[in-house]
Amino acid sequence: MGMVGGGPGSFIGDVHRKAAIIDGLIELVCGAFSSSAERSQETGRALYLPENRCYASFEEMILAEKQLPEGERMDFVAITTPNHLHFAPAKLALQNGFHVVCDKPMTLNVEEAKELITLVEQTGLLFALTHNYTGHPMVRQARAMVANGDLGAVRKVQVQYLQGWMATAVEKETGGKEFWRQDPAKSGMGGALGDIGTHAENLTEFITGLKINELAADLGRFGEGRVLDDDGNILLRMENGAKGTMSISQIATGEENNLAIRVYGEKGSLEWHQENPNELITRWLDAPKKIFTPNGKGLYAEAAAVSRIPSGHPEGYLEAFATIYRGFAQHLVAVLENKTIDGTAYPTVYDGLRGLQFISAAVHSDANNAAWTKLQ
Amino acid sequence: MGMVGGGPGSFIGDVHRKAAIIDGLIELVCGAFSSSAERSQETGRALYLPENRCYASFEEMILAEKQLPEGERMDFVAITTPNHLHFAPAKLALQNGFHVVCDKPMTLNVEEAKELITLVEQTGLLFALTHNYTGHPMVRQARAMVANGDLGAVRKVQVQYLQGWMATAVEKETGGKEFWRQDPAKSGMGGALGDIGTHAENLTEFITGLKINELAADLGRFGEGRVLDDDGNILLRMENGAKGTMSISQIATGEENNLAIRVYGEKGSLEWHQENPNELITRWLDAPKKIFTPNGKGLYAEAAAVSRIPSGHPEGYLEAFATIYRGFAQHLVAVLENKTIDGTAYPTVYDGLRGLQFISAAVHSDANNAAWTKLQ
Amino acid sequence: MGMVGGGPGSFIGDVHRKAAIIDGLIELVCGAFSSSAERSQETGRALYLPENRCYASFEEMILAEKQLPEGERMDFVAITTPNHLHFAPAKLALQNGFHVVCDKPMTLNVEEAKELITLVEQTGLLFALTHNYTGHPMVRQARAMVANGDLGAVRKVQVQYLQGWMATAVEKETGGKEFWRQDPAKSGMGGALGDIGTHAENLTEFITGLKINELAADLGRFGEGRVLDDDGNILLRMENGAKGTMSISQIATGEENNLAIRVYGEKGSLEWHQENPNELITRWLDAPKKIFTPNGKGLYAEAAAVSRIPSGHPEGYLEAFATIYRGFAQHLVAVLENKTIDGTAYPTVYDGLRGLQFISAAVHSDANNAAWTKLQ
Amino acid sequence: MGMVGGGPGSFIGDVHRKAAIIDGLIELVCGAFSSSAERSQETGRALYLPENRCYASFEEMILAEKQLPEGERMDFVAITTPNHLHFAPAKLALQNGFHVVCDKPMTLNVEEAKELITLVEQTGLLFALTHNYTGHPMVRQARAMVANGDLGAVRKVQVQYLQGWMATAVEKETGGKEFWRQDPAKSGMGGALGDIGTHAENLTEFITGLKINELAADLGRFGEGRVLDDDGNILLRMENGAKGTMSISQIATGEENNLAIRVYGEKGSLEWHQENPNELITRWLDAPKKIFTPNGKGLYAEAAAVSRIPSGHPEGYLEAFATIYRGFAQHLVAVLENKTIDGTAYPTVYDGLRGLQFISAAVHSDANNAAWTKLQ
Repeated sequence: MGMVGGGPGSFIGDVHRKAAIIDGLIELVCGAFSSSAERSQETGRALYLPENRCYASFEEMILAEKQLPEGERMDFVAITTPNHLHFAPAKLALQNGFHVVCDKPMTLNVEEAKELITLVEQTGLLFALTHNYTGHPMVRQARAMVANGDLGAVRKVQVQYLQGWMATAVEKETGGKEFWRQDPAKSGMGGALGDIGTHAENLTEFITGLKINELAADLGRFGEGRVLDDDGNILLRMENGAKGTMSISQIATGEENNLAIRVYGEKGSLEWHQENPNELITRWLDAPKKIFTPNGKGLYAEAAAVSRIPSGHPEGYLEAFATIYRGFAQHLVAVLENKTIDGTAYPTVYDGLRGLQFISAAVHSDANNAAWTKLQ
Repeated sequence: MGMVGGGPGSFIGDVHRKAAIIDGLIELVCGAFSSSAERSQETGRALYLPENRCYASFEEMILAEKQLPEGERMDFVAITTPNHLHFAPAKLALQNGFHVVCDKPMTLNVEEAKELITLVEQTGLLFALTHNYTGHPMVRQARAMVANGDLGAVRKVQVQYLQGWMATAVEKETGGKEFWRQDPAKSGMGGALGDIGTHAENLTEFITGLKINELAADLGRFGEGRVLDDDGNILLRMENGAKGTMSISQIATGEENNLAIRVYGEKGSLEWHQENPNELITRWLDAPKKIFTPNGKGLYAEAAAVSRIPSGHPEGYLEAFATIYRGFAQHLVAVLENKTIDGTAYPTVYDGLRGLQFISAAVHSDANNAAWTKLQ
Repeated sequence: MGMVGGGPGSFIGDVHRKAAIIDGLIELVCGAFSSSAERSQETGRALYLPENRCYASFEEMILAEKQLPEGERMDFVAITTPNHLHFAPAKLALQNGFHVVCDKPMTLNVEEAKELITLVEQTGLLFALTHNYTGHPMVRQARAMVANGDLGAVRKVQVQYLQGWMATAVEKETGGKEFWRQDPAKSGMGGALGDIGTHAENLTEFITGLKINELAADLGRFGEGRVLDDDGNILLRMENGAKGTMSISQIATGEENNLAIRVYGEKGSLEWHQENPNELITRWLDAPKKIFTPNGKGLYAEAAAVSRIPSGHPEGYLEAFATIYRGFAQHLVAVLENKTIDGTAYPTVYDGLRGLQFISAAVHSDANNAAWTKLQ
Repeated sequence: MGMVGGGPGSFIGDVHRKAAIIDGLIELVCGAFSSSAERSQETGRALYLPENRCYASFEEMILAEKQLPEGERMDFVAITTPNHLHFAPAKLALQNGFHVVCDKPMTLNVEEAKELITLVEQTGLLFALTHNYTGHPMVRQARAMVANGDLGAVRKVQVQYLQGWMATAVEKETGGKEFWRQDPAKSGMGGALGDIGTHAENLTEFITGLKINELAADLGRFGEGRVLDDDGNILLRMENGAKGTMSISQIATGEENNLAIRVYGEKGSLEWHQENPNELITRWLDAPKKIFTPNGKGLYAEAAAVSRIPSGHPEGYLEAFATIYRGFAQHLVAVLENKTIDGTAYPTVYDGLRGLQFISAAVHSDANNAAWTKLQ
């Protein structure tokens, strides 16, 4: 694995590294950790990487690694930079024969997303998008329960992703460090929409197996001077006629990372909370509430497959993130060994497009006083 | 107290009776419990009432009681009938000098609601609407915290009221007993909107002290053959610029009585769940999460005033309901004794109008593909 | 009902009154509310009682009421005084033909308890002991599940009752008001043991249907100058070989009323918390955790019988307390009508004896460095 | 790192490997994974280790690695075998100059534990014991709060570790795989005592900073034919006069890994649950309940130091385990660089001795009908 981004002070770069190595399948061999050659070297040193594989730019890394013999050169590129720096390295990696793991939102707009899809389809290379929350065992169980019809037809969805860290003017407080999130040139047309809304959108479609057909979005820009949304209240209509609400916020004072979803079907319903991810609460027409746990009783194989430790020992954010990397790595190993496996155990470039379609539709809807807008 | 409704099999009539008597301030002295004279007598007998004060109709009760000497005749009428039978007895009671306690929604439409307001204002009689959830100590604490500015300006509201008892075709299963809820002539223009949506609306305005300015409603009629809504997903805009979502449902399979609210302000936020009503969860910019409990530490006087027992002993639905009756009774005693007290400790005819405006706006918005509609 | 105790400032007297009347089966007709005739009158006036039925002492009340014609005189005596004033009024009531409802612990010692049993058996009168926590629907469900063998043979019990209100020197702070709890002449040989330990003991035997055979108690007297226990850590051995722990405390800083129990059987287990009483958590060998709720799915008749309102509407402390009164009243009505009913729906004089045997054994064990001591 | 144990099918070996590598400080370079040379090779291959560093025995590994040049040879030995195979490799490693990370309980008896202490003191080598639960941020916060006097003097402790996996005769069901846990020759004199009781004991002493002075243990052997305890109910007396209970079980049907502790001080109390480890519940004399979270508001530096990710992203079992390894690795790096650091951020050989003293005292007490027995 060669990493783009993840230099000094990067939270998400460190997460990618831990998630990649925890299962012993992936090794970090090189990186273009920063746009400063010096800081890229500094980061590489701290990671015990050889100096000559700490690059000053992703272009340099991709072109140099390509020259190395197979088996020595990196197998794939992991992109952990801010939003506006996803597309170019992803494109260059694909064009030079490297598989890609990319953070979300995948690109700045729908057009770029479609261009990456074309490249992936043309090259046949693998592309994983780190919608990490889909890696939780109880999210896999939820998806399997819906897919197996346990809940009956889905009628209603409630999803939320609530954070409070932008409740105050953090742009000013933190010396500009997070400012890129409110800069359309770097963040894209969405603020909270891109940062957390795409997770809510992806989780909804992942668990229900249904596409969001159209939405009506009322976005907020509560922080003084903000040009991008920091809050959103959104009505959803799913492709099968189900309806729902999505509530996202980065100004929900005191909230930490409150991603949660409820799905109501004709026969049963389920509820999952990211902050206590090892419970899946289910409710039924004719039976008391049942709570599933990782490696606990009554799970589908899809859930059991992604639990690493016995029941009652909590797994968390890093493990779920690692599950995305593991699914990608297992697929990659199969490809390298010319084997065929079920390669759908991780989000892909198509999920990336959905995310951009979601952001685009929400921004457009909001600009039209929450008019219904299709995801396309 | 004289009761209208509450005959054999009535759940809510029994609730009103228990709630009225628990604090020892109110006595049931007569009733028109059923449209059948026989069943009214039967109910009265079970309640140890004298035969001559079990009436065959509310008209008979109001007119007969009026003839009785003061001190013997009922002081007020409690109306516990289905929605379409609220207006007429309330009007007649007021016209004949009786104070009123009325279940919600207050009337079938905005016009009737306004007529009751006019009558209340003309007569000076008291009128309580049993939005019982506002009686919980932790709801009073929530309201006081917002009013005192602890949370700062409110920016975001999430409110939900989720039930699952209409997930199946209960109209057919229960022999028509609950059918009136899906009959516009008896229920009004709203289904879930009137039954539970008004509670969500009232709780929102009660806690935030803010009016809902406009809404965009996407209603569902999931049960086969239903003409009234059994589900709703609604965007809210409050008078101060705050935004929010409301999710209501009676087809949320497995949910019992999941009324809950979150309010986010600039400095703090709060969260309350009806099914575990003795906790008020609060979150803060600079302090860990704090959980308040009835008669616990750090409460405002408004919360302490409505707790009956020491901290750690849960109070529930009946006690909160009783708090509405107690507030009304205390006001009534003051009026009878020509004293002046703060008579705002219970919802009134004005809350009733808000409920009807809410139903009306939501139905209108839904008919226009969730167009923004003002509450008026 | 005639009440002994419950004068100005009495918390528990007010609880008894609310609990007695809520179901409309019982009326308060007289009382000896205080040892001061004046304050007894004052209390009676506030309760709208006639002056001539507010007595200056329980002796006066019992003897005077006895002279009144049947139908007019009180049917039973409710005793709500401090511990040392339970035995005498209970004895006198029984001797004069009145049924009794008595607070716990029933008497000051085992001998008095046995004397009351003899009197009850000789007179055939009813005697209810207000172990109110056994009135919760989920406690009834728990008992029924064990009785029906759902859990298999019980192997392990964990019970606790934790309060924090005596963590500081409340004896001095409250002007002596609660001082009787640390005065052996008034409280008996147990402090926390009598006040809350008996509830834990009773709940354990009620749910498991098993008697505690012997115990080993290590008591604490943490408050400066206290002569009675304010904390206890106790090992339990049940009659069937099951083992367990009991932890009680009134110096558990910050705890409100944390009564909780876990029962582990060969096939399943259950967990109940008084502070959130409307959930019964169950765990199983081969199925996920199931959570039962009042009037929810899958309940035994014993639980359904004591729920007053639909599922999802919480009932609390007063309702559970009222269930004891209702069970007693229903039994009393049956007796008055010469009918036979299952009269075991409330704790009786025999439970009172168990409580005293528990206190006595624990005090004795503690005095012998936690030596095993039988309950007898 | 060279590993002893962790061959095919070993749960805990895999945990050690993941925990060791997640922070990027430790690399697995060799192992004696199984007593079968073949299976040791097989495990090594799956881990991408060179064949010549997969040894057939720990003796072979230690002696062979010792011959390798510094910088190439392993720096320390990680011991992940069953209990009876801890002492010998630990001893040999120390005797040959290797630092040690060892699973718990450290040895089979107090004598062996003392021998290891002597060796550690003589050699000056580092010795970490993987009491992994002490690695949770909220456990560190708890310890810091007690140490800083926030709770005042500790008066009462409740600790439990409840599992249900031995509720049935797993010895027979699993083909003998787990049988060593009930074999005194392999498990030592304690069953549940050694497996989970030592965790409860260690957590108690870690958080309170107090030693358990004496205990009274009533052990159970509920599984048919079991010679070692599978359940325990234990009274505790701490060195400062505090009292408490410990409840441990492996026959608590349906429980997964329910390790929890409550500590009550004069001014406040705390509560922590391993199954939801990212909350620390605290209660206070004069303030509402406060709940701390990793990287949340109001933490001590000791807690913040061991959180890897922003608040609201749960960390779990593996991360806490990794924190032990990280603390050890940081100490080791300091030692290798001749630097001095605070090397107490992980449990050591002295904690190992406490564990054995605890097991020994509990077994002795139980054999004497729960007589008070000192830990020595």
